[in-house]
Amino acid sequence: MNIFRSGKNPIISPENIKPSSRDLKVVGVFNCGVTKFNGEILLLMRVAEAPINSDPKKKLVPILNVKTGKLIIKELDKADYTVDLSDSRFVKTSDGCYLTSISHLRIARSKNGLDFEIDKKPAMLPENKYERFGIEDPRVTLIDGKYYINYSAISDITGVTTCLASTIDFITFKRHGVIFMPDNKDIAIFPEKIKGRYYALNRPISAEYKTADIWISESNNLLCWGNHRRLMGVREKYWDNGKIGCGAVPFRIEEGWLEIYHGASKANKYCLGAVLLDTIEPWRIIARSKKPIIEPEMDYELNGFFGNVIFSCGVLYEKGMLKIYYGAADTYIAYAEIKLKDVLNELK
Amino acid sequence: MNIFRSGKNPIISPENIKPSSRDLKVVGVFNCGVTKFNGEILLLMRVAEAPINSDPKKKLVPILNVKTGKLIIKELDKADYTVDLSDSRFVKTSDGCYLTSISHLRIARSKNGLDFEIDKKPAMLPENKYERFGIEDPRVTLIDGKYYINYSAISDITGVTTCLASTIDFITFKRHGVIFMPDNKDIAIFPEKIKGRYYALNRPISAEYKTADIWISESNNLLCWGNHRRLMGVREKYWDNGKIGCGAVPFRIEEGWLEIYHGASKANKYCLGAVLLDTIEPWRIIARSKKPIIEPEMDYELNGFFGNVIFSCGVLYEKGMLKIYYGAADTYIAYAEIKLKDVLNELK
Repeated sequence: MNIFRSGKNPIISPENIKPSSRDLKVVGVFNCGVTKFNGEILLLMRVAEAPINSDPKKKLVPILNVKTGKLIIKELDKADYTVDLSDSRFVKTSDGCYLTSISHLRIARSKNGLDFEIDKKPAMLPENKYERFGIEDPRVTLIDGKYYINYSAISDITGVTTCLASTIDFITFKRHGVIFMPDNKDIAIFPEKIKGRYYALNRPISAEYKTADIWISESNNLLCWGNHRRLMGVREKYWDNGKIGCGAVPFRIEEGWLEIYHGASKANKYCLGAVLLDTIEPWRIIARSKKPIIEPEMDYELNGFFGNVIFSCGVLYEKGMLKIYYGAADTYIAYAEIKLKDVLNELK
Repeated sequence: MNIFRSGKNPIISPENIKPSSRDLKVVGVFNCGVTKFNGEILLLMRVAEAPINSDPKKKLVPILNVKTGKLIIKELDKADYTVDLSDSRFVKTSDGCYLTSISHLRIARSKNGLDFEIDKKPAMLPENKYERFGIEDPRVTLIDGKYYINYSAISDITGVTTCLASTIDFITFKRHGVIFMPDNKDIAIFPEKIKGRYYALNRPISAEYKTADIWISESNNLLCWGNHRRLMGVREKYWDNGKIGCGAVPFRIEEGWLEIYHGASKANKYCLGAVLLDTIEPWRIIARSKKPIIEPEMDYELNGFFGNVIFSCGVLYEKGMLKIYYGAADTYIAYAEIKLKDVLNELK
């Protein structure tokens, strides 16, 4: 696979982002949806912030107080052996699971797709009980002139859900509530109806049977989803034997719908791969990457808040080229180009 | 609470049911949906069957082979310390979870609501990959002359989902696919539209945040569901501090919608309680039982395949009286009557 990584990578870093409040520091800017708006490339980025902490003996976790709109900062004693800090993203305690950062969505704009002007303020902040631990990993699907944004909403009360919002101007955003119930994230909504129906890829979890597979669901209005069908799971002997989930909004090519998804190995190495779905019956898989199309290699992909991760929520497809905006090490946004024909060769 | 239990209880027992095949024995007939059809009371019952086993050293678990339509009987060695047989309903092994029985749906009919004629053959058998471990716990909702049946579909491949079927004659059944994704069961569909929308109570699970609460979802066609909202959870100091889930199809009374739901204590004692929802805005709770309306007391409720359980998928409401058909000890169907005014008194 011939991959062109930008020499400017990472193209966006935490130090480029103004915190949303004085008490917080930006620990990551990653997993962004991408679209074109007003002749520019627009990224809707996940910005993760952590409470500023001057006490090395404490771990602070942020939680939205829905009534006041302010953050509650919960202090955990690092010396307490019941407090599990082994994963930088979570803290597990005897009374529940917390996130070490809280995410919001922020906009960046660019004329050339590499040099971005970043909004000083959030586009969307967590605001309700489904979002107490933050909003994450947005995908932007343009349908009939309206931009639909699906994002993960995380909350101790309601688990991991996926919500829908829409905008026509990227200034005001309308929330449409929970479209996929706990635990279901990494949703990708197709950009057009197929035989009169919308489709979305999603990843529900069965706690009882330990499955976390990609399913495909149908809708006639983008709000209510049904006819859920299991599409694909992890593959024991491949790069994606640990975890899979959608990445980018699927795009149409001559051969079908191409979806760039993420797969993780059992050792938590996150790569991107491709799956080609039938044009008319997108619940049929035509081919799936035997090897990743891109995997962590560079320092900014290997090291960061959570290293060894490449994760994409948005790809632009233009003139035979996949323009991939991706989260690197849960810290940065990076950019790479891959020719469609190279991806298709790999799918043969 | 004044409860009238039928003197004929249990009104239906495993020995009243003809097995669906010679290799199986009926271990339970319980959790039935109830409706009126052609002037009779019709029960759509869950019938659980286990492989006939002559080897006391083995545990046999049944799995549907979707291609052949026949059962695969998997043999597990009881002496193997990695095989966990501590719960009579499941077997947990290093390669996954199995059910010790496989369920189908069967019809029983009665003129007086107590003496039932039972079909010799199943009404619906498991038949697809979502149903490899069986179909369970049907609820029947009559809407505009059509009977909608939602049931739990269990499969090692797809987890615990809820599927929809419909019938007008209880002879042929049309399947409409998965309406709620893993893990989500104990769904109750309201019997009429409210302000132009259908509603369903359901219970999604967050593995990550260890929640298993009742949510309410909307639909305009019964097939696609959205605007999911969390409705209620377990209550630490009450009878329902372990688990909750829907029971019967909700019915309308003057004060709102009455839902008879099940709650289990942390020690797995399953009782029924009531929750009263607003007539026009059913996502608003008016009142909820502080004590169960009925709890296991009788021998047939305390002892069986899985004892200490009262669980209902169907209640008929007539002339101020709740006529409750319930599963007892995951083995029998029993019948009880409770006056509405007694339930409402308890909700005050």
